[in-house]
Amino acid sequence: MAGPDRPPTSRDLARLAGVSQATVSRVLTNSPRVSPDTRARVLQVLAEANYTPNALARAMKTGRTDTIGVFMTRVTSPFHAALLDEIGRLLGEVGLHMILWNIEHDPEESVSKVIQQRLVDGFILTSATYTSKLHTIAVASGTPTVLIHRGIDGLDCDQVVGDNWQGAFDAGRYLVEAGHRDIGLVTLEHTGNTSRDRDLGFRAALAEAGVSVKNRNVITTNVAHADGHAAARQLLSAKKPPTAIYTVTDLLAFGLLDGARALGVTVPDDVWVVGFDNTEMASWEAFDLTSVNQPVHDIVKAGIDLLRRRIADPTAKPTILTLPCPLVIRGSTAHTVVG
Amino acid sequence: MAGPDRPPTSRDLARLAGVSQATVSRVLTNSPRVSPDTRARVLQVLAEANYTPNALARAMKTGRTDTIGVFMTRVTSPFHAALLDEIGRLLGEVGLHMILWNIEHDPEESVSKVIQQRLVDGFILTSATYTSKLHTIAVASGTPTVLIHRGIDGLDCDQVVGDNWQGAFDAGRYLVEAGHRDIGLVTLEHTGNTSRDRDLGFRAALAEAGVSVKNRNVITTNVAHADGHAAARQLLSAKKPPTAIYTVTDLLAFGLLDGARALGVTVPDDVWVVGFDNTEMASWEAFDLTSVNQPVHDIVKAGIDLLRRRIADPTAKPTILTLPCPLVIRGSTAHTVVG
Repeated sequence: MAGPDRPPTSRDLARLAGVSQATVSRVLTNSPRVSPDTRARVLQVLAEANYTPNALARAMKTGRTDTIGVFMTRVTSPFHAALLDEIGRLLGEVGLHMILWNIEHDPEESVSKVIQQRLVDGFILTSATYTSKLHTIAVASGTPTVLIHRGIDGLDCDQVVGDNWQGAFDAGRYLVEAGHRDIGLVTLEHTGNTSRDRDLGFRAALAEAGVSVKNRNVITTNVAHADGHAAARQLLSAKKPPTAIYTVTDLLAFGLLDGARALGVTVPDDVWVVGFDNTEMASWEAFDLTSVNQPVHDIVKAGIDLLRRRIADPTAKPTILTLPCPLVIRGSTAHTVVG
Repeated sequence: MAGPDRPPTSRDLARLAGVSQATVSRVLTNSPRVSPDTRARVLQVLAEANYTPNALARAMKTGRTDTIGVFMTRVTSPFHAALLDEIGRLLGEVGLHMILWNIEHDPEESVSKVIQQRLVDGFILTSATYTSKLHTIAVASGTPTVLIHRGIDGLDCDQVVGDNWQGAFDAGRYLVEAGHRDIGLVTLEHTGNTSRDRDLGFRAALAEAGVSVKNRNVITTNVAHADGHAAARQLLSAKKPPTAIYTVTDLLAFGLLDGARALGVTVPDDVWVVGFDNTEMASWEAFDLTSVNQPVHDIVKAGIDLLRRRIADPTAKPTILTLPCPLVIRGSTAHTVVG
């Protein structure tokens, strides 16, 4: 049999059980072509030798897979792609692998089945919404779970989010202090804390300054570039168009900028545009977008740290971290005050 | 015990084996706190009942995980993000999940270990390179494997790629027929078939038309937007700048366009720009980029079809599909002939 350092091979085990290697393999795959007696003898030998034929079996034995399950939507959004890349990079740095479920494409009941299957050591949820129960199911499953980027108020689990409300407030105050009074707001349905806080924080800044948000200047839309494009065309072709437009994601802001371009409206001379995320693309000349920064690296780093702590100690008290989101000013807004 | 339709619970099994549920659970996790006799009795009962405590154990039994492993690099590139999204979407449509390994962040020896672990029913490799042995290791592992987007000449496995050579040839012919004679080529080291064929096909079109590719007009660079940006600044600040620049990815083309913008060079009046991939962003006003189309949906669909066929019949003869990549003309090139 194997020496003390070498794990037993299926050949060693076959010899020990007095059967062929093919029979060992049939037992491992639960083939019906094995008599109950032989099966029991092989299982006994396997159990005594702590034999792990592959990672699946080893996971059964140790209860660890060294794999983290990530639930995400819309990997084609530049912000989500950057988040995904950073999760993979930082998990890799600590020797962990990633299973990605794009919950946009998997029906919720299939995802909640996946959660029950205990394929992974922990979950990272990046897209928690109020309309989904996945975060509740994940937490209730007992598998260590961290929410990053999107949080759920009052949910008793580890969460790391950006301070969306304060970032939006700062963006609103910046526009008001620059003299804007007719300000467009391109927003989303509040299905998660991100769009909600990015909307409410902005409105709070305007309210504090006594600037009203006119209904005709508010557009609630969907998440794509084309939606921002359509919103810009609607706002900018009005009789009295806004002098500045703030929106809740960079992708919508890119759509706004392209919609303005399509109309021949010049940014920032005719209209200022402010986004949220500060994706790498925001810094490209094509957009040169003023945007509220999301600290992607810090969010992911803190999230993975919390998750690893919870894997090591499932009884740790949940931690909720809110990281600052500073405004980054670029050419889509002028640095001078509006007259 | 369970009726014919209900799978046995660990409680049923505990009763059958004459032990507590906790003992069943200890056997399943291979705890040392179970005597060899008890362990053997429980394993026997489990085996007879075909009991599957979770997905890992079920995978051991059926040999199926309903999960496909995807190896990818650079999810932040808009093309790769679109590819990833489409893989997730089309796998979801046929009830399969996805494990994603970003092989940029996992060292090659750890990825090849993963391949040996048989965690998945099949592999999709999107980023095969000549400098990596992952595709060889994946194929040799016996796990069904398909290469999509990037192929490896002569590798005996299923492959679905775009016709990069012909697409590049058509882009070259288009520029030559429009009258360009001083043409820039921003290219990559030939680590995969995509960059190689997108380079060689382009050169072949120019050679066929008797147009030389001048050394000063060729820049071999890296994959990021910043690399395209630097290439544009170098080419366009030359004494006799090229009148057109072709590059091997859209991301590099976006960098070229932004580099031109930074210099105040107008596209297409001063210089034409042609990319490769036809990502969604190519159609945005910010870029309005003429680009060779990669049929992402068709590549992914055909790849998943081939993979499922191979999972069902591992002895099927490998199929290699090459799908057409037509040129899509937009505003970064003029529709009129150069004088």
